[in-house]
This record gives sequence, C-alpha cells and structure tokens, in this order.
Amino acid sequence: MNISFQKLEELLVSSKYHQFLGLSLENAEDGYVKLKLPFKEEFLADEHDSYVHGGILSSLIDVAGDFALITMVGKAIPTIDLRIDFLRPARKEDLYAEAKVVKCGRSLGISDVVILNQAGKEIAVGRGVYSTA
Amino acid sequence: MNISFQKLEELLVSSKYHQFLGLSLENAEDGYVKLKLPFKEEFLADEHDSYVHGGILSSLIDVAGDFALITMVGKAIPTIDLRIDFLRPARKEDLYAEAKVVKCGRSLGISDVVILNQAGKEIAVGRGVYSTA
Amino acid sequence: MNISFQKLEELLVSSKYHQFLGLSLENAEDGYVKLKLPFKEEFLADEHDSYVHGGILSSLIDVAGDFALITMVGKAIPTIDLRIDFLRPARKEDLYAEAKVVKCGRSLGISDVVILNQAGKEIAVGRGVYSTA
Amino acid sequence: MNISFQKLEELLVSSKYHQFLGLSLENAEDGYVKLKLPFKEEFLADEHDSYVHGGILSSLIDVAGDFALITMVGKAIPTIDLRIDFLRPARKEDLYAEAKVVKCGRSLGISDVVILNQAGKEIAVGRGVYSTA
Repeated sequence: MNISFQKLEELLVSSKYHQFLGLSLENAEDGYVKLKLPFKEEFLADEHDSYVHGGILSSLIDVAGDFALITMVGKAIPTIDLRIDFLRPARKEDLYAEAKVVKCGRSLGISDVVILNQAGKEIAVGRGVYSTA
Repeated sequence: MNISFQKLEELLVSSKYHQFLGLSLENAEDGYVKLKLPFKEEFLADEHDSYVHGGILSSLIDVAGDFALITMVGKAIPTIDLRIDFLRPARKEDLYAEAKVVKCGRSLGISDVVILNQAGKEIAVGRGVYSTA
Repeated sequence: MNISFQKLEELLVSSKYHQFLGLSLENAEDGYVKLKLPFKEEFLADEHDSYVHGGILSSLIDVAGDFALITMVGKAIPTIDLRIDFLRPARKEDLYAEAKVVKCGRSLGISDVVILNQAGKEIAVGRGVYSTA
Repeated sequence: MNISFQKLEELLVSSKYHQFLGLSLENAEDGYVKLKLPFKEEFLADEHDSYVHGGILSSLIDVAGDFALITMVGKAIPTIDLRIDFLRPARKEDLYAEAKVVKCGRSLGISDVVILNQAGKEIAVGRGVYSTA
C-alpha cells in the first residue's frame, strides 16, 4: 500500500458525511478495502421503515471504490462516474462493502464494489471511475 | 399526475433518510419533479470541508428520478440501477434536482436527472432504471 | 467548431468499422452531431430477423457521442466508458443518432446521445465519457 | 444449464450480426459462457487501423452477458441496459469474453463480463441488465 492503514482510517473518518454514515475500515490491502456500515435508523428509505435507501448503498459503493484506489494512489481522489445495481433490499442490518481495483492508471482508476449483509448475501454491486491524476 | 402534489410531498418526507437530507418538493408535473436539497454540514466529503459528497449527489439523483416516475405510477417504486456523472464540485450551497421521465413502461421506468446549484451550474447528471410493476 | 464539416466527415468514414456500419454525417455544430445509420441485414439480432442488435445501437451511440466532442476538441478521442438504455426495438429501418456535449473539460468529455427512428420514436439513449486530453 | 450446448451454439449463430462478428461459443456452464471473437479488419476503429472499435467490444459484452443468462433462462432475452469500461486498446488480435451471471431473477437478470486478449490482458469490462420475464 502507498498509505498506512492508520492514515487510511484517518482519511475515512475525516469526512463529515462518512462520520454520519458511521463507516469503519475493516481491512485494507494494496488495491482492496473492506468497509463496515453499521445500521442506523436514518438510513431507512420508506414510510414502513422496511429497507435501507439506495442513496446510502450508492454512498457506500462510492466510498469503498474510492478507498480501494487510495490504497494505491496514496491520497484522496474525486469520483468521475458511478454505477450501481441493486440486487436485493438491505434490512435493518449492518452492511459490508468490499472493493477491488480493476485498473489504476496515471489519470484514471476503476474499482468494483460489492455490498454484502452479515449473512453474506449480495445487496448491491457497483463500479466507479475515479481521477487518479 | 396519478398522485396529488400533497401526497407526493407526504411520500417524500415519509422516509427517514429523506428527512436527514432535508429534501423538499419544489415542483411536480406529470413525469417531472424538481427537488431542493438545502445545504448541511453533514454532506461534506473531505477533511477540508470543501465540497459535497458524491454519495449525497447520488442520493439526490436516485430520489429525484424515482419521484418523477411516481408522478406517473402513483406509488413508491424501487430502483433497479443508477448511473451518475459528476461534472463539478458542489460547494456549501443549496442544490436542486430536476428529473424527467424518459420511459414509463409496464415493468420498467427510466428517468434523467440533472443537479444544479443556485447559480444554475450543472453539478451532476444521472439516469436511473426503476421497477414500475 | 474546431474542425471543418468536411474533415469531420472524412474522419467518420476513415474507420473500417464505420464503413461497415455505413454511417453518414447529417449535421454538425459546436458540441452537436447528427448521424445516420442506414439499415443493413447484417445488423439484425435474432433468428427471426425482427430487430436490430443492441451492439449496433451501442456502436452508434459510442460514435455519435465521440463525434459531438470531436467538433470541440478537433481530433479523434478514445472512449473511457459508455452506458446504453434500450427503450424499444429498432426494426428494419434507418436510424438517426443525435449527440450533445454535456461537458468538455481538459481531460474528460461527456456526451448524451439519443437514437431515433424515421418516425421520431426514441429507440435508445446513451451517455459516454471520453478522454479529451 | 436449461439449454443444451448445441442449442446455445445454434442460437448464437442464428443472428446475422453474430455471423458478421464471427462469434463462437468456447465454453458454457450454468450461469457462465466464454465466447471467442476472431479478429477481422472490419472491426478497426481509426484511420490508422491501430485498434478495435469500442462498438465491437460493446457488442461482444452485450452478447456474452446475454448468453450467460440464456444458460439459465433457456431462451433468448432482450437487453435492458448496458455499461462498458474500456481498459486498454485491443489490437489486431482475437478476443475472448467471459460472462458470469450476477443475478437471475424472475423479471431481471444481471451479468458481468470481461474481455481478454490472447495474452490474458483485460481489454474491457462490462455489466448488463436483461429482461428474464
């Protein structure tokens, strides 16, 4: 990794939005991170409080993809574009995002992300392009 | 519209996550909505608090695209997939999302969304597919 | 435009794949092109020869989005990523693609494309990111 | 598989566009296919004939993702949307697409596809949503 685990953790919690989300860094290797998103009532999408909002899942995918690249690039980098496929609803449960770098070029990086629940079921998959310049 | 403005507004604020975002309905017509996202410190992305998180913009796009379809479908519908292109950073400013229905079929609907700041600059564009079944 | 209409036309037909497609340039302005794709039997997708292949529509979207940016950039540029939504089947008919630049930055450009048939019905929409560097 | 290898092969070559592409089925299992795209001059993108057109790669991704789902669904199914990330140029070389089903629901299916060259280098990745209804 081009950044220490501790620095990566500091960067993760330095964002006010990440603080709201309550994100923590579970694991990090070169080109890979695993994040945890502990459940919060504020994440709920619908009037029946029955599932987590797609915007929360999109946020988690954005951050995880970014941090997978940050392990290689060593600094915070902006997202260029993002795509999310929602596979099944997330309930009132903690979620995990695993992100892997697909490409890390001089100007662009691409990451693949999967969101899993505690039971290991896939909740959503996503892919993001980030500026590595 | 297949739902009243008031019902649409009630649906918008019935979600705990929408309450966190502070979303309000500015305008609604058949196949079109305009939402307002008033700025909040919790939206900030980086350690320098200099721009709004991509996850917040993604959330706004998801909701706006959904509600444009809800004007036609008349009920809450889940997102199938979502794509966001980030054009320029959003600063500490209120944002607006305008969403237009591209297609509203029996099983699938597609919406196009643009996020603008108060100065009318495009911050991000997005497109989502939703289940209308 | 940062390239003449004639040069743009020459660039369009200089590609062997564009020659196979039979693409022609109908219209071009700064940040905008309209292309024509005359129908060919080789475009057909299925054993019943009933509709045009999604790969053909994807190709048309890729090229149109690229050429909208080429009007501004003045030279051929590579595609970074591409997204296509298929709205309705294209039959044995000529198709038209209209592409508009959403953003033309120093390193990245984004175009929006719509494919229409002769009756003016929307067949597909797409968005592409291109390297303008 | 819910279709025999031979039927899958027949379906693949029943499309006039697939015939133009020269596609062949290398391997198929439940939820997985490997296709081969032998190089053709007509695939070339640029005036210098130096690389394969993005539209060809998009086509290959569309077909491979579709056929991965066809192994499970047992019949031809239409594409709803498609996303492609181009990683590196494909030269005058045969290409291979490997597609895996991410989800196969009653109404929607999702496939992930990677295009590799003979040297095993990743040329492009893509993801598609298909109608399984």
